[in-house]
Amino acid sequence: MTTFIGLGDMGSTLARTSLAAGHRVTVWNRSHSKTTALVDHGADLAASLADAIEASEVLIVCLFDHRSVHDVLDPVVDRLAGRQVINLTTTSPDGARELAHWAARHGADYLDGGIMAIPSMIGTAASKVLYSGSQQIFDQNRPLLETWGCAEHFGTDAGMASLYDLALLAGMYVMFAGFFHGAAMVGAAGVPAKEFAVRAADWLRAMAPAVIEYADVIDGGDYAIPGQQSLEFSDVSDIVAASRAHGVSTELVDVVQRLIHRQIDAGHGAHGFARVIESLRGAAA
Amino acid sequence: MTTFIGLGDMGSTLARTSLAAGHRVTVWNRSHSKTTALVDHGADLAASLADAIEASEVLIVCLFDHRSVHDVLDPVVDRLAGRQVINLTTTSPDGARELAHWAARHGADYLDGGIMAIPSMIGTAASKVLYSGSQQIFDQNRPLLETWGCAEHFGTDAGMASLYDLALLAGMYVMFAGFFHGAAMVGAAGVPAKEFAVRAADWLRAMAPAVIEYADVIDGGDYAIPGQQSLEFSDVSDIVAASRAHGVSTELVDVVQRLIHRQIDAGHGAHGFARVIESLRGAAA
Repeated sequence: MTTFIGLGDMGSTLARTSLAAGHRVTVWNRSHSKTTALVDHGADLAASLADAIEASEVLIVCLFDHRSVHDVLDPVVDRLAGRQVINLTTTSPDGARELAHWAARHGADYLDGGIMAIPSMIGTAASKVLYSGSQQIFDQNRPLLETWGCAEHFGTDAGMASLYDLALLAGMYVMFAGFFHGAAMVGAAGVPAKEFAVRAADWLRAMAPAVIEYADVIDGGDYAIPGQQSLEFSDVSDIVAASRAHGVSTELVDVVQRLIHRQIDAGHGAHGFARVIESLRGAAA
Repeated sequence: MTTFIGLGDMGSTLARTSLAAGHRVTVWNRSHSKTTALVDHGADLAASLADAIEASEVLIVCLFDHRSVHDVLDPVVDRLAGRQVINLTTTSPDGARELAHWAARHGADYLDGGIMAIPSMIGTAASKVLYSGSQQIFDQNRPLLETWGCAEHFGTDAGMASLYDLALLAGMYVMFAGFFHGAAMVGAAGVPAKEFAVRAADWLRAMAPAVIEYADVIDGGDYAIPGQQSLEFSDVSDIVAASRAHGVSTELVDVVQRLIHRQIDAGHGAHGFARVIESLRGAAA
C-alpha cells in the first residue's frame, strides 16, 4: 500500500499511474472533490490525514510548495516515525535539505524527487524523475518510482535532485532565450521564425554533445590543453554588431561576451572556451 | 576551371577538396609558399592575380576579413566584369551587402557564403555552407559547392547567409553559456562537470525541438492561444535563488528573467513563453 498526499494535477497523475500499474493506493487531499476520480479507479479514500499516514509505510507527498508540506504535515508530524516520505513537491535545494532534517528529527526517512515532466508525460519514456536523499527508500520502492518515468538517484544529499533539476532547467531556459535571439536577428530581415527554427533545432541538437568535451576539459583542470577553440577565437563581437545593426537587443549576447571577456582580460585568451565556467563560479553567495 | 583566391587554412581546404572531387583549379595567394602543396595536388598556379582572374569565370574568394577582400581585389576590379564571385570570407551581413553592390557596380555577379564548419569538417556530411545573393551562381555551381558540404541558398539578399550564420552561432554560444551555468550550479555541490554534461546533452537535445512549436506561435502572431506554458509559469526565480545560494553568478539567468519579466510587467503574464522574443525585437539600432 502507498499513500498519496496531495492530489493536484501532478499528484493525481502519479496516483492514477500507480493504480494502473497494479499498486494498491490510499489517497488523501485537503479538498475531497479531487479524490472522487481516483476512488472510481480503485484507490482507498482515507477518512483523515492521520488515517492516510496510518494506511501505508510509504507516503508520496505532492503539494503546492515547500511551505505547504509543513502546513499539511506539521500537525500530524508525530505519526511520521518509521515512515518513508517521498516528497515530489517542487522545492529548492535548501528546502529539500531542510525537509530531510525535519523528517529525520521525527524518525522518518526522506527521499526528495524532482520531476522533469509535465503531467501528460508521466508514465511515458519521456518522463524523468531525479531523486536524492535516502538510498534505502529509492532502492526499496524502485518498481513504484519507475511507473512514473525514468528514475535516477543522485546521492544522499537531499538537495541534489532539486539542484540538478534547476541546473538542467537553467540550461533549457537559456537555450530557448538564445533561440529567440537568433530568431529575432533573422526575423529583422523578414525570415519567418519557423524557417529559422527547423534549422536551429537541428543545429542545437548537433552542437549539444560538445558540452561533454567542454566537461572533460573542466574536470581535467587544464584549460590550456591543445585542440580547443580558444577564448580569443570565440569572441562574439560579430554577433553583437549584427544584432545591433538589425535592431535586436544585445543584452543576452552582451552577457555571454562579458563572461568570455572576463577570462580574456585575466590573461587567458589563448585558453579553451570551456574556461567560461570560471566566470560563473565562486560568486559571493 | 575555378580560381581560388586566398589560401589560408579554410581556402586551402576548399581548393584541395575541389581538386579531390575532380574539379580543375587555379590558385593564387599573396604569399606563394601556401600554393606549393596545392600545385603538388594538381592545381594550376597563376603567375599574378590578374592571371588568376583571367583563368576562370568562377572566383572563390576566401580571405581574412571584409577589408582584405577590398585590399586584394580593388586593384584589379576592372577585370571582374562578367565573372562570378563566390565570397566565403567571413563578413558581417552589411559587409556582404556592400560587397554585392560593389561587385554589381563592376559588372560581376556575387554570391556570399557562410561556412558552418571548421576546415577538418569540409567535404564531410557534418559541414554546412549557407549562401545568399545570386541565385544564378548558386544554381550553376551547385556540384562544386556541394563538394564542400551541404549547400543551401537563403535568398537574393547577399547579407542573409551571414545573418543566418551569426543567428545560429548566437543560439549555440548562448546554449553553451547555459550549460556552463548549470555545470557551475551542480559543481558547487561537488558534481563533476562530465556527470552533468552527459545528462545535459541528452536534455538539451530532447528540448531543442520545442523551438519549432515556439516558432509556430511567433509566426501565428497570437501569444494567447491555448496549450502554451505561460510566462508567469516560466518564472526562473527558483533558478536564480538556487544559483545565488550555491555561489554561482546570476548574471546570465538574470538577463533571461529580465526578458521574461518585461513581458509580464507589460501585462502579458498569461501569454505563452514564446512572447519572450518581443523583449528582444525592435531595439534601437
